[in-house]
Amino acid sequence: MIIGGSASQSLASQVAIELNDKLCSLETKKFPDGERYLRIKEDIPEDEKVIIVQSTGYPQDENMMELFFILDTLSDMNITDITVVSPYLGYSRQERRFKEVECISAKATARLIQTFGVKRLISVNLHEDSICELYDIPVDNLSAMPAIAEHIKETFEVKPVILAPDKGAQNFAKEIATILDTDYDYLEKVRLSPEVVETKTKNISVQDKSVVIIDDIISTGGTIVNAIEILKEQGAVSVDVFCVHPVLVNDAVLKINAAGAKSVQATNSLKSDVSVISLAKTIANHLKAL
Amino acid sequence: MIIGGSASQSLASQVAIELNDKLCSLETKKFPDGERYLRIKEDIPEDEKVIIVQSTGYPQDENMMELFFILDTLSDMNITDITVVSPYLGYSRQERRFKEVECISAKATARLIQTFGVKRLISVNLHEDSICELYDIPVDNLSAMPAIAEHIKETFEVKPVILAPDKGAQNFAKEIATILDTDYDYLEKVRLSPEVVETKTKNISVQDKSVVIIDDIISTGGTIVNAIEILKEQGAVSVDVFCVHPVLVNDAVLKINAAGAKSVQATNSLKSDVSVISLAKTIANHLKAL
Repeated sequence: MIIGGSASQSLASQVAIELNDKLCSLETKKFPDGERYLRIKEDIPEDEKVIIVQSTGYPQDENMMELFFILDTLSDMNITDITVVSPYLGYSRQERRFKEVECISAKATARLIQTFGVKRLISVNLHEDSICELYDIPVDNLSAMPAIAEHIKETFEVKPVILAPDKGAQNFAKEIATILDTDYDYLEKVRLSPEVVETKTKNISVQDKSVVIIDDIISTGGTIVNAIEILKEQGAVSVDVFCVHPVLVNDAVLKINAAGAKSVQATNSLKSDVSVISLAKTIANHLKAL
Repeated sequence: MIIGGSASQSLASQVAIELNDKLCSLETKKFPDGERYLRIKEDIPEDEKVIIVQSTGYPQDENMMELFFILDTLSDMNITDITVVSPYLGYSRQERRFKEVECISAKATARLIQTFGVKRLISVNLHEDSICELYDIPVDNLSAMPAIAEHIKETFEVKPVILAPDKGAQNFAKEIATILDTDYDYLEKVRLSPEVVETKTKNISVQDKSVVIIDDIISTGGTIVNAIEILKEQGAVSVDVFCVHPVLVNDAVLKINAAGAKSVQATNSLKSDVSVISLAKTIANHLKAL
């Protein structure tokens, strides 16, 4: 049985189709005072394996609380075999303490999710691998890169060069380039003199090349805008921007397009108007293999 | 040590003053993507008794999550003697199941709060007494009526009649009337014929009287607007409206004023522009007596 939370309704139904599993109906609404109402409309047998699909991106707190309400209701139904799939896991950016005494929100979230006896958590390209260690249950950190590579293969006429906007993202570029059998690189800051810093591609030239930028998360888009400007200066023919998690704060898409991107595309880990790549197969195949 | 959450900053500092206790500094902010950052800026000894004041009204989920983050951070500091004061406790309206299989959100919330080892929960005029039974820890359900009665005593020249808008609220009216040594009553629907229902005061006449309406929560204000219209028809000289929890959805205050209320006043269990009665003494006196 697949249960889709408000944040991941379409993805949940696609996962159900891929698994040939049943999609559970929920009734959710908000009262005038802002409080959430939630009801599970199916009769689920106690020994049923239940998979909840619910991303916990913006509004993080609402999506988290809805997830907890689903979990509490399932525990009232004596259902114990529960897997949570949260393709974008909110509060994953603070997984350690930088200053005394900060809240390690990724840890607080882990405690809350585990309160309800979840058996396994599945997410996609967690911002830090160390998130997994905050949980006592197994956490599977899937990669969206095969799905993104497949989408590039299907939609690009000319094989692009894959470029990470910084060193931290180079493994994403490498993973996609390996699947597509193409070149990859990342942008690096080089100090030319004590006063002058130049950002350029580390190893290869993008002159006359179609370039794909890949990153895990695009938030404000600042890093991507800089990258596009540099790639255009260095002679790239076109720049298409891909990411796993389209957080896309405020006018991020507009800024990226205005900087000269041919397209902005992302997975449906979060709802957005660029969420064109479905993670359904990635998630379903992983669930099948468990 | 008193910690005030975002929702109850002033009330927390007033409680600290009443108790002659220290108010802890918090650093809270939101990142551009909407995620909350929280840091406790004081060095709190492990054996310190900590009282967190945080109402969990709208936005409920955000205020709840902030409370959980404070609790998780305190538990990292090895602080175990923690009392939560949530004068308005969000999700207290669904404390049982009316339909199969609804989320009992008051119970889910209780589980979440208790995840972090809270010793005691204090709230004010919980919508249902049975909320207390959802917790394994002691839950103290304080009454704001003495504070409201005191405020009426100080600000009214003529002793008013206290009126509940329905039978469910009559005990509030009784409690205030007893303190003020005045009359109280409630409005009741009477079926005059198969087609005609009239709402009127149960026992006393409000003709030429100053009337105070009291209820625990005012949400949309519909009940109160009806009550004012009936009391005016029955000859009340003036109608002042009091409640404990000013939920006040949308244009509730405007509607109540337009219906002819002389004033709308409430406690500071929730922030609003009518939260003129402080619960600080009510809460502090209870804490002192523990």
